[in-house]
Amino acid sequence: MSTPPYVAVVGAGVADPATFKTAEEVGRLLAERGAIVVCGGMTGVMEGACKGAKDAGGTTIGILPGFERSDANDYVDIAIPTGMGEMRNALIVRASDVVIAVRGEFGTLSEMALALKTSTPVVGLGAWELHKEGRRIDAFVEASSPRGAVDAAERLWRKS
Amino acid sequence: MSTPPYVAVVGAGVADPATFKTAEEVGRLLAERGAIVVCGGMTGVMEGACKGAKDAGGTTIGILPGFERSDANDYVDIAIPTGMGEMRNALIVRASDVVIAVRGEFGTLSEMALALKTSTPVVGLGAWELHKEGRRIDAFVEASSPRGAVDAAERLWRKS
Amino acid sequence: MSTPPYVAVVGAGVADPATFKTAEEVGRLLAERGAIVVCGGMTGVMEGACKGAKDAGGTTIGILPGFERSDANDYVDIAIPTGMGEMRNALIVRASDVVIAVRGEFGTLSEMALALKTSTPVVGLGAWELHKEGRRIDAFVEASSPRGAVDAAERLWRKS
Amino acid sequence: MSTPPYVAVVGAGVADPATFKTAEEVGRLLAERGAIVVCGGMTGVMEGACKGAKDAGGTTIGILPGFERSDANDYVDIAIPTGMGEMRNALIVRASDVVIAVRGEFGTLSEMALALKTSTPVVGLGAWELHKEGRRIDAFVEASSPRGAVDAAERLWRKS
Repeated sequence: MSTPPYVAVVGAGVADPATFKTAEEVGRLLAERGAIVVCGGMTGVMEGACKGAKDAGGTTIGILPGFERSDANDYVDIAIPTGMGEMRNALIVRASDVVIAVRGEFGTLSEMALALKTSTPVVGLGAWELHKEGRRIDAFVEASSPRGAVDAAERLWRKS
Repeated sequence: MSTPPYVAVVGAGVADPATFKTAEEVGRLLAERGAIVVCGGMTGVMEGACKGAKDAGGTTIGILPGFERSDANDYVDIAIPTGMGEMRNALIVRASDVVIAVRGEFGTLSEMALALKTSTPVVGLGAWELHKEGRRIDAFVEASSPRGAVDAAERLWRKS
Repeated sequence: MSTPPYVAVVGAGVADPATFKTAEEVGRLLAERGAIVVCGGMTGVMEGACKGAKDAGGTTIGILPGFERSDANDYVDIAIPTGMGEMRNALIVRASDVVIAVRGEFGTLSEMALALKTSTPVVGLGAWELHKEGRRIDAFVEASSPRGAVDAAERLWRKS
Repeated sequence: MSTPPYVAVVGAGVADPATFKTAEEVGRLLAERGAIVVCGGMTGVMEGACKGAKDAGGTTIGILPGFERSDANDYVDIAIPTGMGEMRNALIVRASDVVIAVRGEFGTLSEMALALKTSTPVVGLGAWELHKEGRRIDAFVEASSPRGAVDAAERLWRKS
């Protein structure tokens, strides 16, 4: 018997309304396709993704940096406080089949990098672009819309 | 708004039929009282507790030592692979309001100790007894039946 | 080429003068025999062990629960802040060939249990005694003096 | 009393001769200026940095991904096996006052990102370049030689 795919939605803890809405749409589409949404459980993109998933009847997991379950946003079903700070980013990646990065700051970059290091596929949506020695490195799928991101994620989780 | 209590059921990965049944009954009673069952996600007492909780319509979380979600027993709803080995025992404790130890070996003892160290209440059911300098140390509630253990746990989570 | 043995000295963060002196003697003897002393880096037994080791010209490592290197006691040569709280106890055990427990509270018990779980040998010096179902469990060497503890540890590290 | 600065040198586990030599020179200069070199303890850039530091009489710490102290390269003085895989990258960052990235792959990128997330200053030497929305993000000091990198690191640790 198979389990549903677990997809991390990662991004900054502070989100402008457009970014929040993007995250919400990503969460909604993931839930509609049967994926469980994994995230850091806090505000911003994490909250948007959870809200979208819950609106579509999905399940959400928040892997929290602190010690208190009550730190989780209101749309987290299962809250796992770790007390590990940003070290918990590695746990978010390990728990997931695919990582979708919605814009994001340095914490998000660490999650993208840890995923790429451990061969967990990454989809970016307005996320970091990586360059080395002046050349663009194409290490992950770049999407231009929530639907494009979730389509790409679905292709990736079906392969994994 | 309140979340349900999260209660860890910890014990050995190999369980004789009587111990498995005890774990199952603990899981069932926890689910009936609205608690989410947290465990290490593997076999033995962990599987018994999850099976009991699922039979009663509850929710179960397995915080796994390895990297594969598929390591989880069949009764785990939410599987979190950590890749941290026995270090994940600290995560099980951090995720929980109360820890119920069903018999158990050294891993279980580490969970009891980490819980006591961090003021998470512990209920033992045929678990380790602690002595120091020849004297018994009464650091946790000892129960003599699954119902007694879950009654004690419920009193403890209502206080926490 | 061989590296020196790494021996953890674990115990409570608050130590009466006799316990501190015991830890100091353990640290001194370990250093005299070429072992590196690993500990949690804080006060009490950890400080005693480091002080003893430094007095004998040894090397000491403190694996700290917090984020600040300056939390280490004055006798720590190499301070590793982890920000993992008591979860770092597992790191202390993983770093060590043998664990010597000097009396100790619940944190110490967690270190003994994690060591026993992962087949790292343990020597107790006035440490916890473990019972199950009314019977004493002899899972580790019990010593009655610092010299006895370090003799036992040396036998164990030579085998490992 | 003050402790020496701890400086992480991070980079890939496979290094061509020029990169190895660069890492070696960084390690040597750090040791000459009294810094302790922290790294992941393995081959490639990590080994180069340790070798350089040891040649100059410095001290080196290897925070290893696996369980075996013997995984460390020959120039590691203090080896800390963590069993945490790439999650240990966060420990390398937490242990350090400044992070110097020498070229590097995704693991290195995760260390740069975790450092930037937690306000640990970063110096890059042929390392990743970060872009967002088509614009270069200047989040860390970019150096063009080992001496330039260590000069920058020294300015940063004197401020921290």
